[in-house]
Amino acid sequence: MLAARMHAYHQPLTLEEVAIPDIQPDEVLVKVSAAGMCRTDVQLLDGYFRPYAESTFPLTPGHEIAGTIDKIGNLVPPSSGFEEGDQVVVVGGWGDGTCRHCQKGNTQICGHGRWPGFGPYGGYAEYVPIPSRYIIKVDKRLDAAELAPLTDAGLTPYRGIKKLRDAGALGPDRVLGVFGVGGLGSYAVQYAKLLGGGAKVVAFARNSDKLAVASEYGADAVISTKDKSTAEIRKELEKAVGQGELDAVIDCAGAPEFMRTGFELLSIAAHYTAVGLVGDRIDIPLFPLVAREYTLHGSFWGNYTDLSEVMALAAAGKIRHTVKKIGFKDINENLELLRTGDIVGRAVITY
Amino acid sequence: MLAARMHAYHQPLTLEEVAIPDIQPDEVLVKVSAAGMCRTDVQLLDGYFRPYAESTFPLTPGHEIAGTIDKIGNLVPPSSGFEEGDQVVVVGGWGDGTCRHCQKGNTQICGHGRWPGFGPYGGYAEYVPIPSRYIIKVDKRLDAAELAPLTDAGLTPYRGIKKLRDAGALGPDRVLGVFGVGGLGSYAVQYAKLLGGGAKVVAFARNSDKLAVASEYGADAVISTKDKSTAEIRKELEKAVGQGELDAVIDCAGAPEFMRTGFELLSIAAHYTAVGLVGDRIDIPLFPLVAREYTLHGSFWGNYTDLSEVMALAAAGKIRHTVKKIGFKDINENLELLRTGDIVGRAVITY
Amino acid sequence: MLAARMHAYHQPLTLEEVAIPDIQPDEVLVKVSAAGMCRTDVQLLDGYFRPYAESTFPLTPGHEIAGTIDKIGNLVPPSSGFEEGDQVVVVGGWGDGTCRHCQKGNTQICGHGRWPGFGPYGGYAEYVPIPSRYIIKVDKRLDAAELAPLTDAGLTPYRGIKKLRDAGALGPDRVLGVFGVGGLGSYAVQYAKLLGGGAKVVAFARNSDKLAVASEYGADAVISTKDKSTAEIRKELEKAVGQGELDAVIDCAGAPEFMRTGFELLSIAAHYTAVGLVGDRIDIPLFPLVAREYTLHGSFWGNYTDLSEVMALAAAGKIRHTVKKIGFKDINENLELLRTGDIVGRAVITY
Amino acid sequence: MLAARMHAYHQPLTLEEVAIPDIQPDEVLVKVSAAGMCRTDVQLLDGYFRPYAESTFPLTPGHEIAGTIDKIGNLVPPSSGFEEGDQVVVVGGWGDGTCRHCQKGNTQICGHGRWPGFGPYGGYAEYVPIPSRYIIKVDKRLDAAELAPLTDAGLTPYRGIKKLRDAGALGPDRVLGVFGVGGLGSYAVQYAKLLGGGAKVVAFARNSDKLAVASEYGADAVISTKDKSTAEIRKELEKAVGQGELDAVIDCAGAPEFMRTGFELLSIAAHYTAVGLVGDRIDIPLFPLVAREYTLHGSFWGNYTDLSEVMALAAAGKIRHTVKKIGFKDINENLELLRTGDIVGRAVITY
Repeated sequence: MLAARMHAYHQPLTLEEVAIPDIQPDEVLVKVSAAGMCRTDVQLLDGYFRPYAESTFPLTPGHEIAGTIDKIGNLVPPSSGFEEGDQVVVVGGWGDGTCRHCQKGNTQICGHGRWPGFGPYGGYAEYVPIPSRYIIKVDKRLDAAELAPLTDAGLTPYRGIKKLRDAGALGPDRVLGVFGVGGLGSYAVQYAKLLGGGAKVVAFARNSDKLAVASEYGADAVISTKDKSTAEIRKELEKAVGQGELDAVIDCAGAPEFMRTGFELLSIAAHYTAVGLVGDRIDIPLFPLVAREYTLHGSFWGNYTDLSEVMALAAAGKIRHTVKKIGFKDINENLELLRTGDIVGRAVITY
Repeated sequence: MLAARMHAYHQPLTLEEVAIPDIQPDEVLVKVSAAGMCRTDVQLLDGYFRPYAESTFPLTPGHEIAGTIDKIGNLVPPSSGFEEGDQVVVVGGWGDGTCRHCQKGNTQICGHGRWPGFGPYGGYAEYVPIPSRYIIKVDKRLDAAELAPLTDAGLTPYRGIKKLRDAGALGPDRVLGVFGVGGLGSYAVQYAKLLGGGAKVVAFARNSDKLAVASEYGADAVISTKDKSTAEIRKELEKAVGQGELDAVIDCAGAPEFMRTGFELLSIAAHYTAVGLVGDRIDIPLFPLVAREYTLHGSFWGNYTDLSEVMALAAAGKIRHTVKKIGFKDINENLELLRTGDIVGRAVITY
Repeated sequence: MLAARMHAYHQPLTLEEVAIPDIQPDEVLVKVSAAGMCRTDVQLLDGYFRPYAESTFPLTPGHEIAGTIDKIGNLVPPSSGFEEGDQVVVVGGWGDGTCRHCQKGNTQICGHGRWPGFGPYGGYAEYVPIPSRYIIKVDKRLDAAELAPLTDAGLTPYRGIKKLRDAGALGPDRVLGVFGVGGLGSYAVQYAKLLGGGAKVVAFARNSDKLAVASEYGADAVISTKDKSTAEIRKELEKAVGQGELDAVIDCAGAPEFMRTGFELLSIAAHYTAVGLVGDRIDIPLFPLVAREYTLHGSFWGNYTDLSEVMALAAAGKIRHTVKKIGFKDINENLELLRTGDIVGRAVITY
Repeated sequence: MLAARMHAYHQPLTLEEVAIPDIQPDEVLVKVSAAGMCRTDVQLLDGYFRPYAESTFPLTPGHEIAGTIDKIGNLVPPSSGFEEGDQVVVVGGWGDGTCRHCQKGNTQICGHGRWPGFGPYGGYAEYVPIPSRYIIKVDKRLDAAELAPLTDAGLTPYRGIKKLRDAGALGPDRVLGVFGVGGLGSYAVQYAKLLGGGAKVVAFARNSDKLAVASEYGADAVISTKDKSTAEIRKELEKAVGQGELDAVIDCAGAPEFMRTGFELLSIAAHYTAVGLVGDRIDIPLFPLVAREYTLHGSFWGNYTDLSEVMALAAAGKIRHTVKKIGFKDINENLELLRTGDIVGRAVITY
């Protein structure tokens, strides 16, 4: 089969012919129909994660995977209902089942976890072996190129916004800010409307094409932060929604300066969920955090339950997609565009 | 001023001329623009509440009140921002401020509480004195006849559905049943869509006119329960939404047989919120409640915060209304219609 | 091996020699050290569960199991850390892994679940096969006869009281009632103190020997309900703890009359968790449930996480036990004592 | 009456004779029995809060107040039950009642709030006027010098630890770190045990006298951080409690370096509550916050409900105190000791 593999940090991927992988008895072989390209792939290439874990090469990136079942291991339980040919999506964070987090279903934060796309096998290849418990069956009529990004770009903000909702930060008299409208943010805007219970949703970004997507997907207001002070942004916010503060923020970027602006705009008792990883530090003042009782939530990817819920929304036609389909040979070029932030929506490799 | 007063149980109200009430220094005199008629008024007349509290006569019913500020007590704090002529709605459950529930804002369940419409003053009169802390200012452009029912019929299901949402019972892959589509249920259907995060909403009632309102207000399916067994209802439910069980129920009726049906339809770990008071007992099997981990929530009216949120939805134009405006002289006739369940939506007295 | 098996409803168990069971590749063979005897075993014999599921015979009861690992299936993951000879306890509610509840770890309420002790294999035998994911390793120095009851009698009230705590019903100014001080209640009293955050704990039962156990285990007060009206009980309660109402109840009995008393004693916004299954219906008034905003929680057994937490308490020496060790041949006699409610604490079969 | 007043930043307080203050009709005049001295008073003198709010002079510090009722305003409701001579404590954060936070009882984070001790009147004087709704009556047999610090030093960590508990971060298999064992931390250790549900509690500080207090008050382990690397601290932690990570932290200090250590020690999905204000920034790495799903809670002082709960613990004799009683004339000297962190427990002015 064809695979786009990584042999070293800071080098383009190599498109090469390799053997179709074997599966373990509790695994399923998925024939990849579509693989989303994520900014994380660029960070992997650039060595962002090296302080936390060194990679072993060759490595096949690609952790946003939709495909069809090609082969089923003989220990996959019949109660799973899986059959060859079923269309499926892949839950990306795999736990070892022995920790407190796995026991509650949060396998994506297991301390001994694994992920497709960060080791020998990943979605940038025609086939990938997946443990059957991380497979979710979906209707065949759904478009794989739209499903693939939902397993990360369209999953991560869903979990993040659920955290805001479950914390009581959303509701009819609240204003929710979406920071960053790239791969994740265009979904975040939609989930903000779906889960917000009437909250007003305001998107913040530097790029006007991206803000146009946010408007189209239902943002009540969009604000360009380019070359503006917090005071100017606050004034614009007040004009747009009647208050110059944000009761909740989902930060899909994670850029340091942007975060500082975000914290300066928070209302008393506001909640801020960080899902983006553009920067590498948080540096905010302590006094308002304490005296105004802010809560800062880290939120990582999503679990089986989260992805099931996202798939229910997709099946009900409630999610809109901005997908740029590309071919296998265009991977390196699109990784470059990702690095510079020049992709609107999500680039998806189709086969 | 004119007032419709109750002088004894089981007798029609008397329309009579009485003195405009005085106000305490911390009160506001509200000139009533519209007063909603509630099934509770019928129960009050019929003595339903006598086992819990005897009434003192004469009594002026009417606890769903919208109006304008006519006079402001001299101890009402300027920070309230109230001015004569402001359009306001009334939070109906008044606590004495000394209990644990008042301290969290749940004044409507204070053990030493008071309510307009259950003592000398109420909305079935041209003026009513209200403690200033139970007044919420609203935009003058909103229609008082639509606002009045929002203070109970349109508030009670809002709080009930918030309990379901906060318990984690709603979401994209869930089905929420609305039981009863009278005064409360027609709002419940709308809140179910607004707060459901993508949940499918199914309305259940016996009356086809009411089910038609539910459909119009966004219910994904409606099911008439008239002359049907639970098995038949389950089959219809499965056909409509793909599962024969309900993950959550908001019961706006409270009728004994209806409740039993509701509990028979519950899925594992389902949540059931009771707000309706048609019947007077709950009689359900114990084993499924325990072994399937149901949760049954009693939910009563709403507090200041709940009503503020409902007002935010109203101001944003997100609530639709089925209001039948009536004159003062039509009260007794409409109480009779309420008793027999023959009003679609809410009857509202306007002046 | 020896096993005590059930061949029909309403008949004594038969003590007989049978083959040691085989294990599946993902299972562990547990050599039973101790098996707790549960009132549920009596209900199984008496056909209480027949309306929900018919049994297949022969059946080996016993779902409270502590033992040692005798054999390990070849697909049990090494990350489990299991070795032959390890002391273990068994999580009793096994899910099929495909439902929403399993995905959150609540395998004990899986709609397609299995349990040891309700089919061919159970703890009333020398060996029992257990899926490795339902095994928790514990320190060898702990006494198996004390561990076994912790997997149900000492687990069920733990989960129930966690629900009360997580609902905000416990704290320094609250009074928590424990209803029934049999197998479950003697643990409930202890967990109430451990999780109550300073709440006063009052035990209610008819039997003075059981109430003495409750006092010894830390109840702040005990009240015999025998031949007393609710008014008399309320007076006694007020004298004991300064208030005649209960802010929270854990009902380890489930007897109809007892439940009614429990509901009559509830304070406003109280929470009531039902775990006991003595009766088969709940019949309570609707109005106070709604108007005083009670919440009724069904709570069933416990999951892996719950049992891990109970084991942490046991390892820290924070749980006291009332265990009556019996031999294999005494089973039928002790089932009879269970039926009549004449066992203080828990009868445990040791080998 | 005598009062110790502040006439400018960076100057000692002046002990002077001033008029006994008048009260408003809804206020109570409290004769101060004891006033706790808080590190915040030093920060007030030092101008720490000037970026957020400028002070108006003369100002009477002192926000930890216990006393007796001397006079009752004529609009204080009789339902309050207050009588002259009652012993009371003062809830320190007063809201204007018009915001969302006040409506839920969180008056201490009202955006238009007031506090005793930050304006003309405070506890560093013989009398202080207090709105009646911020008064809690307590048993006369309790010692005022022990009660006063409970209104801030003994309240703030209570609220902070409740946030940890309500977030699900505490329980039998968890380790909770208390950072800083000064005025707040010595209470934090005790609440950690009371609310921890069996969690192990480890105190961290630089000063061995303070660590000795932590041990005496129930900490399962204490660790001096003086001149130690995070790796060394981790090793000590692992030896003490069997794991080198903290599942929850209550940070009573807020010192930058200390915070960094705290974050480095967090386990996956850990919760960190900041209540201390020694430093003025938080500077932590972003990637672990997101990928390990940390939650950072700001928590400020406490509200009426929190203080009621603390008073219930005090009345039940469940709180131990480290109080250093001082006279009025020793205030400036003790402010100096507070500045250098050289007071073990709490200095309290008694009259």
